[in-house]
Amino acid sequence: MTSSEPTRIMVAVNESTIKGYPHASISSRGAFTWTIEKIVRSNTTGFKLLFLHVQVPDEDGFDDMDSIYASPEDFRNMQHRDKVRGLHLLEYFVSRCYEIGITCEAWIMKGDPKEVICREVQRIHPDLLVVGSRGLGPFQRVFVGTVSEFCVKHAECPVITIKRRADETPEDPVDD
Amino acid sequence: MTSSEPTRIMVAVNESTIKGYPHASISSRGAFTWTIEKIVRSNTTGFKLLFLHVQVPDEDGFDDMDSIYASPEDFRNMQHRDKVRGLHLLEYFVSRCYEIGITCEAWIMKGDPKEVICREVQRIHPDLLVVGSRGLGPFQRVFVGTVSEFCVKHAECPVITIKRRADETPEDPVDD
Repeated sequence: MTSSEPTRIMVAVNESTIKGYPHASISSRGAFTWTIEKIVRSNTTGFKLLFLHVQVPDEDGFDDMDSIYASPEDFRNMQHRDKVRGLHLLEYFVSRCYEIGITCEAWIMKGDPKEVICREVQRIHPDLLVVGSRGLGPFQRVFVGTVSEFCVKHAECPVITIKRRADETPEDPVDD
Repeated sequence: MTSSEPTRIMVAVNESTIKGYPHASISSRGAFTWTIEKIVRSNTTGFKLLFLHVQVPDEDGFDDMDSIYASPEDFRNMQHRDKVRGLHLLEYFVSRCYEIGITCEAWIMKGDPKEVICREVQRIHPDLLVVGSRGLGPFQRVFVGTVSEFCVKHAECPVITIKRRADETPEDPVDD
């Protein structure tokens, strides 16, 4: 009934929008914790987690820079900073897996998160994709779009959306 | 990290539309098998399955009866027949759980499946709801409606939709 290959669960993770420091978003952490507590449980050898972080290329890229003029060096610095932030984010999840004793992989891609996630599902063929969700209402969703809804419709594997707990919702629910 | 309470997975199951005999639908069986193989695996004590079968009240109720006139006894017979069919369906899943050694519960409700499933989620608070899906395209969905889509949107717990495997799709994909 049960194959010896572990169940491969892809978890899409992103940074928090709240703090300047690269913390994992509330919904990413919620999705990860739920997966460990409710699915993996004590069976750490039965599962493998695959963390995918998709970085959105910053279209103007100067939100938090001093100058509106960019030199090639500015771009390199920006790219370096993005890379460091992304690695920090993945380090958080990889470290927690290491503590728990569950095998994992983690990687960073650039692009539109919803499209990249679905493309990576097609490439990697996980058994399950777990995506956190802010659990926004229909009115808010019109403006912010939701990665999770897109993945539920388009990803070529079963998808589970973990909504943020009500007591973890920040003051502005669009924040995460 | 892991609580001692098992993870409670509600699995919505229904009868096949193909045969006269009350077999489980292809998508119900697929959802069940996936849950056992990919989530429960060898950790049978870590999970409890909750099978919900929602019977749709037959509005005219005489599709397969000889007479268009109904006596109170006809109604009683019909209700008895429905009950027997529902029990047969649940027996299939309960027996398989017994063989595997996983605890389960099973019950039958009447009503609109999508609404009853969401209401039961509210009452029972499972950790996860698993629903099979025929994986129909947008054109077919307009006519048949999909229980899974409704549950993904409205159920108050994480929901996972297991699409029917392509090689199990019957000649008429609306059949199941």
